[in-house]
Amino acid sequence: MRRSAAPPTLEDVALRAGVSRATVSRVINNQPRVSPETAAVVLAAAAELGYTPNAAARSLVTRRTGAIAVVLSEPESMIFDDPFFAAVVRTACHELARHQQQMALLLAHRPEQAERVERFLRAGHVDGALMFSPHRDDPLPGQVRRLPMPVVFGGRPWLPEDGLHIVDADNLGGAELATRHLVERGRGNTVTITGPLDHRAAVDRLEGWRRVTGADEAAVRSRSAEGDFTRAGGERAMTELLARVPDLDGVFAASDHMAVGALSALRRAGRAVPRDVSVVSFDDHPSIAAAAHPALTAVRQDPIGMVAEMVADLHALLDGEDLAPHCRFLPATLTERASA
Amino acid sequence: MRRSAAPPTLEDVALRAGVSRATVSRVINNQPRVSPETAAVVLAAAAELGYTPNAAARSLVTRRTGAIAVVLSEPESMIFDDPFFAAVVRTACHELARHQQQMALLLAHRPEQAERVERFLRAGHVDGALMFSPHRDDPLPGQVRRLPMPVVFGGRPWLPEDGLHIVDADNLGGAELATRHLVERGRGNTVTITGPLDHRAAVDRLEGWRRVTGADEAAVRSRSAEGDFTRAGGERAMTELLARVPDLDGVFAASDHMAVGALSALRRAGRAVPRDVSVVSFDDHPSIAAAAHPALTAVRQDPIGMVAEMVADLHALLDGEDLAPHCRFLPATLTERASA
Repeated sequence: MRRSAAPPTLEDVALRAGVSRATVSRVINNQPRVSPETAAVVLAAAAELGYTPNAAARSLVTRRTGAIAVVLSEPESMIFDDPFFAAVVRTACHELARHQQQMALLLAHRPEQAERVERFLRAGHVDGALMFSPHRDDPLPGQVRRLPMPVVFGGRPWLPEDGLHIVDADNLGGAELATRHLVERGRGNTVTITGPLDHRAAVDRLEGWRRVTGADEAAVRSRSAEGDFTRAGGERAMTELLARVPDLDGVFAASDHMAVGALSALRRAGRAVPRDVSVVSFDDHPSIAAAAHPALTAVRQDPIGMVAEMVADLHALLDGEDLAPHCRFLPATLTERASA
Repeated sequence: MRRSAAPPTLEDVALRAGVSRATVSRVINNQPRVSPETAAVVLAAAAELGYTPNAAARSLVTRRTGAIAVVLSEPESMIFDDPFFAAVVRTACHELARHQQQMALLLAHRPEQAERVERFLRAGHVDGALMFSPHRDDPLPGQVRRLPMPVVFGGRPWLPEDGLHIVDADNLGGAELATRHLVERGRGNTVTITGPLDHRAAVDRLEGWRRVTGADEAAVRSRSAEGDFTRAGGERAMTELLARVPDLDGVFAASDHMAVGALSALRRAGRAVPRDVSVVSFDDHPSIAAAAHPALTAVRQDPIGMVAEMVADLHALLDGEDLAPHCRFLPATLTERASA
């Protein structure tokens, strides 16, 4: 039994109110899915016992640190140059703050950084983690899945997915949507500029293009070129494809940045967009896709919605809810503009 | 008996709870094979004694976490839009990795975030902190200076500086250099566009301009306008100053972004730079100052060198070196280009 000198705990409140710990936690943290009646009972019990939902006291009792790690396995430069990651960091910071939690951003590009991050997480300095690790050779997801703490993955890692909680963009469905848009407009001779193929989303987007075009292995090799998600990479890949497939009439570029690079290469080669060649990109970042010349028809990726769902899942797990492992995809939509 | 000054130990908790050290350790480390009743007794004892579980669990193995906090008291947007902070984060990540340490980036713009960051630092989840807190009303530096861990400040905080370790740009000397450059080229009628004046560096740069021009209080009021370190803010401030001081012939803008905004306002007003008006800025960011039309004469600020020195100081402190408190300024230099 609890000694009378100790401050009342969450368990005491739950016992007095006749509800579960998870319910008390939800009321204390001002979360939805609690009826007003239940909330009133819990708050009355808390008041009777003199329970203070003070975060410091709470963290001591619940062994919570109040901090959540956001782990990005990308080079530092990517965090600042790629609008996807900027949106991820901003949204994570904002969403966690709404839940009275502190974001601790950990970058883990190099293998020795992965080891340090794993050690930091294992030592219990954070209550859970949001994990972005798209690269094939990254050891971190395999280590992290064995930690006794809630982890939600943003984007599918290169791992068997059983037992994991994953939220991802519908990369495959989005790529199918983009390619179908080209084919339905009579573009029978399409090519694709892929992201780096050690990157899970890049592979899924290539697969979407392949399914709609029905390309066999040889056609995939001749009609795709690998970029690195940057503008310069897209320009190089487009130049290569123009040399290999001179009569191409449609391009699916797996990112806005690469599509902008492709537009430059097409312009230099004297191909008018969309008259001679139609271009569809992936991301639909407001300051890139809409600002391009011509403006890009693009599959919309929603990093804000993705991170919001990840944070909601993480809190369900932290609250002890029985959330089944899942790989949930955010629906892909196409924004039509001038380029296709 | 435990002396009241020392932090409570694992033994104290074991004694109070009437269990073994091993049991306390298992509870603290969230391991199985402990009944919920025993866990509750241990946690109650820990709470009574004010024992911090994570820090202590860690000290069982090592006194170091291997992680260093980088704390930025700025809105999330600033981190991505301001090249100074991007350079700070990149360099900190890189320099700490060179020392086999993990960066944990904590953003603390709002007051309730400051409280969470202070709690996180106090709980011993990191070995030390690099602290960027330029704003006057930020409570964090005052809290952080009382923590028993090494902290190095990047830029002077709004605090008495005794006992602190600070590395800063020479904002005052740099502003003097910029203003002298204008005056020596015959610009006797200069104005200044300041950063937000709750920002320490902005105040120091204004003071540098004031010392060289000898402006009295009334002149400071009429010949300075406050921007917010952004391009739009610089444009607004320049427009205001042109209305107040129509015969101005020199401008010291306290950031590259604001200087670029000032150039737009001057162009719209039909003033040729540098023929009618000379402009000097502060930052000398490679992709902004050199790319402006005309290219900006600018005081160079060196965030990379600053963070490298901060990391070196922090490691001296972590290694127990007797490093005297200091406010060390990085020397300011001027890069001459077309604008002045």
